[in-house]
Parts: sequence; C-alpha cells; structure tokens
Amino acid sequence: MKSVNASIITIGDELLIGQTIDTNSAFIAQELNKIGIWVKRKLAVGDAWDDIWYALDEESKNSEIIIITGGLGPTADDITKPLLCKYFGGKLVINEQVLKHIEYLFEHVFKRPMPLLERNKKQAEVPDVCTVLMNERGTAPGMWFMKNNAVFISLPGVPYEMKGLMTKEVIPRLQQHFTLPVILHQTLLTVGVGESILAEKIKDWEEKLPPHMKLAYLPHFGMVRLRITSIGDNKNDLEKELEEQFIQLKGLVKEWMVIDEDMTLQQAIAKLLKERKQTVGTAESCTGGYIAHLLSRDPGSSSNYKGSIVCYDNKVKEDLLGVSQEILNTVGAVSEETVTQMVKGALQQLKPDYIIATSGIMGPDGGSENKPVGLVWIAVGNKEKIIAKQFQFKFERSRNIEQTAIAALDMLRKFVLSQ
Amino acid sequence: MKSVNASIITIGDELLIGQTIDTNSAFIAQELNKIGIWVKRKLAVGDAWDDIWYALDEESKNSEIIIITGGLGPTADDITKPLLCKYFGGKLVINEQVLKHIEYLFEHVFKRPMPLLERNKKQAEVPDVCTVLMNERGTAPGMWFMKNNAVFISLPGVPYEMKGLMTKEVIPRLQQHFTLPVILHQTLLTVGVGESILAEKIKDWEEKLPPHMKLAYLPHFGMVRLRITSIGDNKNDLEKELEEQFIQLKGLVKEWMVIDEDMTLQQAIAKLLKERKQTVGTAESCTGGYIAHLLSRDPGSSSNYKGSIVCYDNKVKEDLLGVSQEILNTVGAVSEETVTQMVKGALQQLKPDYIIATSGIMGPDGGSENKPVGLVWIAVGNKEKIIAKQFQFKFERSRNIEQTAIAALDMLRKFVLSQ
Repeated sequence: MKSVNASIITIGDELLIGQTIDTNSAFIAQELNKIGIWVKRKLAVGDAWDDIWYALDEESKNSEIIIITGGLGPTADDITKPLLCKYFGGKLVINEQVLKHIEYLFEHVFKRPMPLLERNKKQAEVPDVCTVLMNERGTAPGMWFMKNNAVFISLPGVPYEMKGLMTKEVIPRLQQHFTLPVILHQTLLTVGVGESILAEKIKDWEEKLPPHMKLAYLPHFGMVRLRITSIGDNKNDLEKELEEQFIQLKGLVKEWMVIDEDMTLQQAIAKLLKERKQTVGTAESCTGGYIAHLLSRDPGSSSNYKGSIVCYDNKVKEDLLGVSQEILNTVGAVSEETVTQMVKGALQQLKPDYIIATSGIMGPDGGSENKPVGLVWIAVGNKEKIIAKQFQFKFERSRNIEQTAIAALDMLRKFVLSQ
Repeated sequence: MKSVNASIITIGDELLIGQTIDTNSAFIAQELNKIGIWVKRKLAVGDAWDDIWYALDEESKNSEIIIITGGLGPTADDITKPLLCKYFGGKLVINEQVLKHIEYLFEHVFKRPMPLLERNKKQAEVPDVCTVLMNERGTAPGMWFMKNNAVFISLPGVPYEMKGLMTKEVIPRLQQHFTLPVILHQTLLTVGVGESILAEKIKDWEEKLPPHMKLAYLPHFGMVRLRITSIGDNKNDLEKELEEQFIQLKGLVKEWMVIDEDMTLQQAIAKLLKERKQTVGTAESCTGGYIAHLLSRDPGSSSNYKGSIVCYDNKVKEDLLGVSQEILNTVGAVSEETVTQMVKGALQQLKPDYIIATSGIMGPDGGSENKPVGLVWIAVGNKEKIIAKQFQFKFERSRNIEQTAIAALDMLRKFVLSQ
C-alpha cells in the first residue's frame, strides 16, 4: 500500500524574513507519521494573497492532505481566512459555538472585564463551507475543507493551540477519512563518531536492506542519530522485520551507541540514573546553567537532578565551591585544578551522587594564545573518583556551549556506567 | 524597484518526519533580507529524486535565486549532488582545490591518521558546470549554478558550515550579480499585552502607513514584537521616513515597550545593567537554570551576570539559601515566603546587585488542588527591597518554564528601572 501524502503550508512573513523559526511543522509531521501519513512537502509562504492561493493550488497537486498553519490571528496582517473562504467558494458567517467559546475565554480565562473587541468577535467568523474544529485552547477555530478529493485543514499558528487541535480533532478525523498504511521508525543515538565512519561500518548491512526500509543519518553537533523507517500493511510482520534489522544495526555500532530509543542524551542519562536510584548536580562556569536546564527540562527530573551552582564569576567559584585564590591566580579558572575543585565543592554543597563541572572560554572574546576561544575543561566525579578532560572546540559561542554540554553529559554517562 | 525574489529549498527526510527543526532557512532569510532580497517561499522536501527535481523546476518559476541546503553529506542517503549534476547537464569531476582542503582538514583539524575514505574523497567531486564555493569550515563545498536566468546555490546542511559559506561567499556574489533594492526593518519588543489590544491601540496609525511600508505582529509567548518593513530605492529617504513612523509607533505602545530594537528580553536587560554597571544572579527552583542560561548565552554576559544557585531539591533551598524547614513544611516550597527567602539567601551567597528567584509547579505532574500545575511564585530584589508575585500559567511543561522565565525577567527589568 502506498502511503497517503500530506503537504504542510505555514503562512507568515515572519517565517520568510527569518524572525521566527517554524517548530509547528515538525510537530505536525510527527503526528501524521504516527498514523501512517507521509509528509511530502513543507512550504512557508508570506502574508500575500497570490502566494497563498498559488500554494494551495500547487500543494493539492502533490498531496491528498494539505495542512495550513498561521494567518488566523486577530490582527490586520492576517488574510488567510477571507482567502480560504473565497478559495472554497463560501461566505463568512458567525459560528455561534465559536463565539460562545471566545466569550467564555475572555470572561473566565483571560479575565478581561471589557466587552469583546470587534476583531475578537471576528474570530468567530468561519466560511460556511467548512467543518469547524473547536479550539479549546484559544480563540481561533480550526477549519476542515474538501476540494477535488483533497482535504484542507487550517490551524492557528500558536503552537499550544495548534497542538491541541492536531491531537484532539485532526488526527482522529484523518484516521476516519483515509485508509492508512503502517509507518514504523526505530532510532538509536550515537556520540563521538562522525557520519563517514558510521557509514563505512554499516555499509554492507545497509546495502542489503529491503526496498521498503530506509536508513537515515541525522547528525547534530557531536551526535549522530540513525533511524530506520519501514512502511507496509501488516503491522506485526513489519515490527518483527524491523526489530531484526535494528538488532543487527545495534550490534554494528555498539561502541558509540548511547541508547536504542529516540531519546536525547540527557533523557538517556535520566533513565540510567533512575535505574540506579542516583542523582546528579552541576557546577557550571562556561555553560552558565545550560546543563542544569537540560537535566531539568523533562518531566520527572526532580527524582535524579538535585541542583546546580553556576559560578560565572570567579568569586562564586571561591566562595561557594572552595576553588582557592592561588589556583585561580596561577593556573587560572580554565584548568584541570579548577574543575576538579569545582566537583569537590559541589559534591559537598549539593550532595548528589555525581557532579559535572565545566570551565572554558566560549567566545567570541576572552581567548589568549595559551587559552584560545573554545578551550574547555570538564570534570565529572563522585566521592571516590574525579576524572577531568580538556577539549578544544572550534565553533561560535552558542555551539561551543552546546558542544561542551554534550561532551560533559557523555562523560557523566560513561562515568556512571563505569561505577 | 521591485525586490529580487528567492526560494529556499531544504532537503532531507529528517525535516519531513519532524525529527529535525530547520534553523538554517531562518539564518539564510535574514542574510538575504539585509541585502534587499525577499524570500518568497521556503520549501522542505525529502531525499527523493523526483521531489527534489520537481522542486527545482517549480521554485525557479517563482524566484530568481534558489538556495538549496542539505543533502551534501558523505553518507548514502544523500542524492543531491548527482541530481544537481544531471539537472544542470554536467558531469562529476574531482576538484583538486576541494580535495586538498579535505586532506588538510583530516590531517590537521580532525586529526585522523588514517588515509581518506572513498566517501570522503567523493566529497571533492563537483559538477563541472558549477562555480565551486570553498567551504573553510567543512568538507562539502558550496556550488553555484545558472539556468534560465536563475541562480541556484547549493550549500551543506550543517549550520556552522552553511553560515560560513553564506557570509563569505554567497552574499558578496549575489550583491555583485543583482541590482538590489533597499529593505529596512524596525522592530520593537512589548511584554504583557495581547495582539488584539495592541492592534486596537495602533489601528489608526497603521491604516495610514504608505503602501511600501508594512507592519507585522510577531507574538511569542507573553511577548509581541512589532516590526515595520519598508522597501524602496533611496536608502536615506527610506531611513528618514521609517524613523518618523517608528517614533509614532513607539509613542503609541510605550506602556508595554521593553526596547526599540530587535532584541530579546534578556538582551534588553543586559543592556540596562551594563549602563548602570550592575549585576544579577538567580536562585531557581522550577526554571532549573533556564534563566541562568538566558542571562549567560550572549557574548559579554560576564560583565552583568554573576551566577546562580539552582535549588531543584528542597535540601539545597535549606542548605544554600537558608529557606527554613518550617517554611517548607508549612507554606511549602511554592510560596511567597520561600521565594523571598531565596532572594535573601542568594544575595548573600552570590553577591550581585539583584536576584531573581522562582519556585513553581511546571507539570505535567506534581499539582494539587491548592497548588495546581502552572502555579509559580517569582521574587526579585536587592538588599533594600524584595517584590514577590504569584502567577498561574496554563500550558505544558516546556512552555510553563519559558513563561516563568519571561515573567521573571520582566519583573527584574521593571524593578531595575524603578531603582
């Protein structure tokens, strides 16, 4: 069975001048994939009548499903709704259910005492040729249209509202409307190896993959995810076959593999610590709390993450972590001695099982001949043992911070496994 | 003068299954905009021959410039280069300069002692009909093609490499190749006001904008940026006119305006603190170091950011910030008393001029009837004064964290201004 194709159209000049990064379409694609719909094209166009119209025409030649986000807000740069109305040959009418919902939101959620503004009321207007998809999370409703055997779905651009509509309205309706094939993915995460070496290692295996299975390399900083995608009719057969291939792949890359799930490095660490009922804390200079953020942003992190001391200022390194003035004045803040002392100090202060410590020069300024931009010392340890390692990253500031965090988390992972 | 149009095509299945979020095209769009090139469409397609071919055909009907990223890595799921070769009617030949550069990178930068793998050498192959754009930062070169009066530029998908090529090669060559108009933007940032109310407030002004000037509302969580875009021939006239309109706009929204530049809230705070030669630190529970990360991720932040104590565990609140067991056992960690004490404790420990403290329930679990998910206490203060405020956010975890950070930073900004 061939998969059903979708196109995602995101609308808004802000996307085209690079002021906003589109995260909506990634979420939409993930949700569609889970039910066996393949996203063939993703397109962003500006708030221009002709460009949107042309996009609707073109994408419906490519795909049976067209999902449109953005262009539904209450402000004047939004032209999507009148356009959709004309495109599908309807007229705008107030939808009473939507209007009641907007009134409810203003009274009970936004708690605005004033009467509704005209432009807020207008959000209850929908083309009379669409099926309204109620948006519990906001004022702009979703809309479902049919034309020339294609389904067009328009969703608000606010991520939180779009997500609610996708999950509660769009996905169940698409499953009812189409007969869908099965798409399965298996993903693993590697750290510390480049694409080329991975590819060499698994070349023979990859060449023998059956045609309905596909391997993708997804590099991201110092990490590469490998993903097998399989498409077919029979879920059980497909699962079994995919599992067999995945076991072979895991065997081939085991020296670099962090985890055999579609997880981030910090999620893999959280899983590892949970299994061992252990906790971690951080003492961060150059990463400025970024590792703390990574360790605390997933649900349930309080069971394995204790806290951090961000010692951006050297005085904080001295006062809270016990790094001596002598060390700071002789070998300096970016040194093995400093990060080792930071681990010791933070173990005492925060009382976790493990501490990660970082100190380095992230750039663009602050480098010297002896300590160039990108030089970083990382230490990990517990009460018994501390390991420190020097790195030299060669990127711009934000990527140096990211790379330092990845290297530090991978050092922690290996340290925990060695215990 | 009409602006020159560009289309950006990003290639890769990872974009279509939602596993990767495209940040490249935002950067490319920003750079093109600065030199007066308007991005008309952004398109993502998968690693499929026919889809890429069709995209090249279609986009060259829309735009004079087509920029392609991705699909140039050393691994087997990349088909872009052979396709470009066929599309432009050339054949693949080894480029000696690129080969030497790859050999240099392997020997001196990657420090891999082995001889080059066949697939690494292949990266030096380019269609003989293109102009090679040397990629200082990586192995895959950029390529410049001409066909039917359109310029096609292919760039590697690794952001760091793509950025280097855009800045050093693509932009100067486009400026030479086209006669370009002037595009100017002015952006301001507001916090604490919705789109609708802003729109009501500036309606009369907006309606009178000349046709070559356009206003956009860019909402992002609790913030809305307002951007005026102006296009024309004469830079001086355009600048003067834009400045006049911008002054009017600023006057209309002054009660919510944070800054009249295209800056983030934390950049505006950094600027404010630098002017006053003051510093900030944080004591974070629910935001888990995210505010610390925001305050430290921009260059030069060490001059106004001192450090943080992330007290995810209540024991850390007690030991390092002096929150009493009695407070934690009676009113609890999410309370006015706790965040107030966190400010006091962190002022002592970190010794900055100001402290931001946060404590709340980010979800999805951990809520109760009295303290539901989304409940947050934020305090800001200095040695003389502490202000605490309660918030109730209603989003999922990651957005609750983001919203808490924004609310906290805005409280700090107002506190600093009130001093």
